[in-house]
Amino acid sequence: MAQTATINRRIVLARRPHGAPVADDFRLETGPVPSPSEGQVLLRTLQLSLDPYMRGRMGEGPSYAPPVPLDGVMVGGTISRVAASRHPHFQEGELVAGYAGWQDYALADGPGLVRLAPELAGHPSLALGVLGMPGFTAYMGLLDIGAPRPGETVVVAAATGAVGSVVGQLARLQGCRAVGIAGGPDKCRYAVAELGFDACLDHRAGDLKAALAQACPGGIDVYFENVGGAVFEAVLPLLNAKARIPVCGLIAQYNRHPGPGPGPDRTPLLMRTLLSRRIRMQGFIIFDDYGPRFGEFQQAMGDLWRAGRIKAREDLVAGLENAPAAFIGLLQGANFGKLVIQVA
Amino acid sequence: MAQTATINRRIVLARRPHGAPVADDFRLETGPVPSPSEGQVLLRTLQLSLDPYMRGRMGEGPSYAPPVPLDGVMVGGTISRVAASRHPHFQEGELVAGYAGWQDYALADGPGLVRLAPELAGHPSLALGVLGMPGFTAYMGLLDIGAPRPGETVVVAAATGAVGSVVGQLARLQGCRAVGIAGGPDKCRYAVAELGFDACLDHRAGDLKAALAQACPGGIDVYFENVGGAVFEAVLPLLNAKARIPVCGLIAQYNRHPGPGPGPDRTPLLMRTLLSRRIRMQGFIIFDDYGPRFGEFQQAMGDLWRAGRIKAREDLVAGLENAPAAFIGLLQGANFGKLVIQVA
Repeated sequence: MAQTATINRRIVLARRPHGAPVADDFRLETGPVPSPSEGQVLLRTLQLSLDPYMRGRMGEGPSYAPPVPLDGVMVGGTISRVAASRHPHFQEGELVAGYAGWQDYALADGPGLVRLAPELAGHPSLALGVLGMPGFTAYMGLLDIGAPRPGETVVVAAATGAVGSVVGQLARLQGCRAVGIAGGPDKCRYAVAELGFDACLDHRAGDLKAALAQACPGGIDVYFENVGGAVFEAVLPLLNAKARIPVCGLIAQYNRHPGPGPGPDRTPLLMRTLLSRRIRMQGFIIFDDYGPRFGEFQQAMGDLWRAGRIKAREDLVAGLENAPAAFIGLLQGANFGKLVIQVA
Repeated sequence: MAQTATINRRIVLARRPHGAPVADDFRLETGPVPSPSEGQVLLRTLQLSLDPYMRGRMGEGPSYAPPVPLDGVMVGGTISRVAASRHPHFQEGELVAGYAGWQDYALADGPGLVRLAPELAGHPSLALGVLGMPGFTAYMGLLDIGAPRPGETVVVAAATGAVGSVVGQLARLQGCRAVGIAGGPDKCRYAVAELGFDACLDHRAGDLKAALAQACPGGIDVYFENVGGAVFEAVLPLLNAKARIPVCGLIAQYNRHPGPGPGPDRTPLLMRTLLSRRIRMQGFIIFDDYGPRFGEFQQAMGDLWRAGRIKAREDLVAGLENAPAAFIGLLQGANFGKLVIQVA
């Protein structure tokens, strides 16, 4: 069933997942298209961003933000067209970026809506990726927390993903050696040939620790953490004195119980490494920590984009009804590039 | 056997400890007093500082610095009198702070020797504690990495020790709530009554997690990490958003094997907490990271000391031969205040 003018399809959280989400954790519902009150706009969703952080919102444990309520519409960043407006600052037909969630239509009253720059009209989904939240995450996490200096080595996993691909390209632009980690030879080839990584390692190919040591002969100065788990274990012994670790995500552990994992306990080794090598590790949540600098980012990244110095690959999946399967795949690394649902 | 003018007693590393050091890991040797060459001074040790970092130097694994070689003299900060000088900048009879190690006499050629301020002549061991390396560690770790703001809550363990006692007092001077953790009711009473901590919890008294939650009703903003282990586990759930964790020591784990510990693995929980609460954790080694600011520290801490705004308690043990037993006790928390060996 495709998008229509009279029915609002929406995907709600049917139940909280145990471990990896499955199809039955979501439910597609239909209802009437809502009508805007005075001061509101009606948004029609064109594109929906799928991002790993959404896994956190499906649980009820502590996460970045309050969980999605059971039977509530899944949250998500979107590109929408203003279908009707009773808001003084938005006109019918305009393109806006916002957080309409996994549905065809949504009402909004202004805050959180950003009118798309006219130059993006031909490629609005960029505002969900390299020029939006994931790009902003890469930009601030790498440059502000990672603070890479020319000649240093920067390592990032999910190297062809929305965040990792920008981290690697920005690292190169800073004069750093950029070493990526990705799943499978196609992604690794792409990271080196198209994105300019100096090396990219296939974490499915076997001994990641040995491969990483070989790819980082001068050690690791910045590890941009977006996965956790086995990758972080491989990185730890290679970290140089005064290394920096921006922690932006932990996709490898999102699907497991939030408590302690099977032993042995690696915490003492981690703490000892932080101490003896004088390492800084810092968690961040992009809009909470850097919200006021979004304009600065948009300007800088927009310039790089227009100059052709940053590339972005998208993995477009057609149909809102396919969002659950695509999201389940995202957590397993099935996507190749920024995952976007083409809703309309 | 006391210090003499003709024999140099020295305590060497007889073997590398497995787990907690024992008496047989050390050996007392005697030899002739060395003679200074041109450009050297002969130092006679008056006082020897014992500090937890020395445990790291006894192992052969990675630590802050190269390990003490087998049969080598144990390293350590000292207050010495210049017994003979063939160095143009030091005169016989002067008091100097340096790193002569666990022995009666040592040769030095200048670098690393600091002439004691005249006002310290009556109390030279302060230069091994509040006005020396431990005080500097507390000062920079708390103020530069911890960056406490008035009204915030600062937690530190080993609260009556050389570092913890200064952290707590500086936190109070910054307008923070200072919560200490120490071993036994006497130390806890002292921390509150004499050092001015708002609360001090006895980690031997039972449920530390519950006691800490009660003592920190507004959560924890700065955790000055000098112990690791069970204390850090109790702290973790109470950390506020944007908390800071300077990591200066891990005394609870110095005596264990450097590899992973018994499960479960607490790393995923730690990483998740750092991410979702946007926490900064940073290891540091005081002279490596802040060496050029030692003068600034001496001025500031000296002013506080002279004004009576910072107190220091020392645990003086007489006799070089008692250094091994005192050091073994230090790692178990047997000392009460800054541990100093009165050598002469």
